[in-house]
Amino acid sequence: MTAVRAPRPRHAAESGPASASPRPLLGVDVGGTKIAAGVVSPEGTLLASVVRPTPAAQGRTAVLDAIAAAVRELPGREGAVGLGIGTGGVVDRDQGVVLSANALLSGWAGTRLSEELGDRLGLPVTADNDANVFALAEQTYGAGAGCASALYVSVGTGIGGGLVSGGRLLRGAHWTAGEFGHLAVPEAAGRPCNCGRAGHLEAVASGPAITARFRELSGDEDVHDLRRVAALAEPDAGPTGAGTEAARAALAEGAGALGRALAGLVNTLDPERVVVGGGVASIGAPFWEPLTEAFAAELLPGPAGLRPVPAALGPRAAVVGAAALLLEDGPVDVPVRRPENGR
Amino acid sequence: MTAVRAPRPRHAAESGPASASPRPLLGVDVGGTKIAAGVVSPEGTLLASVVRPTPAAQGRTAVLDAIAAAVRELPGREGAVGLGIGTGGVVDRDQGVVLSANALLSGWAGTRLSEELGDRLGLPVTADNDANVFALAEQTYGAGAGCASALYVSVGTGIGGGLVSGGRLLRGAHWTAGEFGHLAVPEAAGRPCNCGRAGHLEAVASGPAITARFRELSGDEDVHDLRRVAALAEPDAGPTGAGTEAARAALAEGAGALGRALAGLVNTLDPERVVVGGGVASIGAPFWEPLTEAFAAELLPGPAGLRPVPAALGPRAAVVGAAALLLEDGPVDVPVRRPENGR
Repeated sequence: MTAVRAPRPRHAAESGPASASPRPLLGVDVGGTKIAAGVVSPEGTLLASVVRPTPAAQGRTAVLDAIAAAVRELPGREGAVGLGIGTGGVVDRDQGVVLSANALLSGWAGTRLSEELGDRLGLPVTADNDANVFALAEQTYGAGAGCASALYVSVGTGIGGGLVSGGRLLRGAHWTAGEFGHLAVPEAAGRPCNCGRAGHLEAVASGPAITARFRELSGDEDVHDLRRVAALAEPDAGPTGAGTEAARAALAEGAGALGRALAGLVNTLDPERVVVGGGVASIGAPFWEPLTEAFAAELLPGPAGLRPVPAALGPRAAVVGAAALLLEDGPVDVPVRRPENGR
Repeated sequence: MTAVRAPRPRHAAESGPASASPRPLLGVDVGGTKIAAGVVSPEGTLLASVVRPTPAAQGRTAVLDAIAAAVRELPGREGAVGLGIGTGGVVDRDQGVVLSANALLSGWAGTRLSEELGDRLGLPVTADNDANVFALAEQTYGAGAGCASALYVSVGTGIGGGLVSGGRLLRGAHWTAGEFGHLAVPEAAGRPCNCGRAGHLEAVASGPAITARFRELSGDEDVHDLRRVAALAEPDAGPTGAGTEAARAALAEGAGALGRALAGLVNTLDPERVVVGGGVASIGAPFWEPLTEAFAAELLPGPAGLRPVPAALGPRAAVVGAAALLLEDGPVDVPVRRPENGR
């Protein structure tokens, strides 16, 4: 495991006067299919982790119990200053309450995460949307560390992210800032979007959208996994090269639309850095080359030298970023509510 | 003159222990054709103003001299705490230097506004881009007063504006934040933009773009003034109604594109308020109705209740906002460099 340094001199409160080792942070990523929990050092090193299935079909209480159980399984969790949670849906960051959620976590809306898990674990608990958590991880420990302003975009099943200004992640007036997927883009004209409207970036540049476009271009209706499209687009895609052109074109169309949309946002917001992560962004050159080319071609003279950079933390951003929620308001100095826990 | 109250308790330093009246602020708007200068109270009331032609053809020194002369003509300028300047082009807000400018003010790039006018007038001088100044005026005294986050858009010959987050106007990493005109939008596909690229919002929703679209739709090549299009679009446009449908369609297309683009930005940024001003926005219902309709149809559930509101200050935002630059970093407490001036 590679240690990643925090850009800011934030130090966790020490566990006691006799100990020099800083108290760890706990982070949990709650998805529709799995729960990942981890112990994270204040410098952003993932020290331990466990992954368990999400009992989504059993309802809210079962999911909350499973999160608590996963946390209790973590080795080295003793003395933790608190727990940060990232989850799908819209989350009230101040209250730690899920305001709305998608079908993968039915009944999740209204869940008082901070309260329910604070009671179960006897720890301070804070929570946020998983796209914000991704952005916070990269801002605190990753590709945007030290930037006063940055735009973080995660491209996977959907397109989301976060925006940092003045060194702070913007949450928005309704906790929905960072929904980059629902910009109307010319390339998506007429294509239905997951939000129920049409013509949005997510309808042309998300993983499922690129895979669907491959099916259109190749006529191969059996491909439903972006990894297959990515494999076909590789320069050494095999002796026949079947589908290679269609795979490259589908990736280039999606990446080009994303690049132009991001450049438009850069022209509008003028951030110091643009970081692109998520499963689609991990594909490599067949995605990054058209992304970068389209992005660069659209920039105004002011930010003309900017180029998107890949996210640095990969999948561990979810747990590390959730833990970083505990650091967001300055050095960790969170009182542990129950002395028998973690001291 | 209507007094407009400041939302924040900012008070200018008093002019002396024997006086209870706050020291005024001075603001100047420098355009390609005219210079407007004004005396502004700390509460945002425009107390006096003068307008003079810009001697743009005579070069930088002549323009600087004309600005200084206009300021010296202002009645009641004695005791002013400083001068704020709004100008076209990209301005380094920290240094008060014009980084780039358009053809209307040739030779303006590189002008050290704060230094040159500070020397001429013996006052502290600060400067910014005119679109930022518009946003700051509305944020400080106008339609966004008291909002922690807001998006300000000015629609005229071009489309620009500013974005407020955490109560502060964002300047960006290269001082170009707020360039809303250069988002790629579906409605502008193929249409050339002033920036040299194509397909941008400004190419379909600015005043000249709407007027050009009217010429296309009506076949009337003689109309080059948006006011003519606006007059034709009025419900009582005259007995023949000639051009009325084309005028309404041209306005609706531009306003619709703007509404959808703004909604995409709102979905991305989730601001508390959206304020639209500038000459095109002053047209009224033939612009505002399609703008609002397109905007509302695009919003995600979080910000779904938001609607754009008109700018409150009208043309005086330029001078009042320039003066408000002096207040941006807190209560006015700027030392006057030369005691013989303004005390």
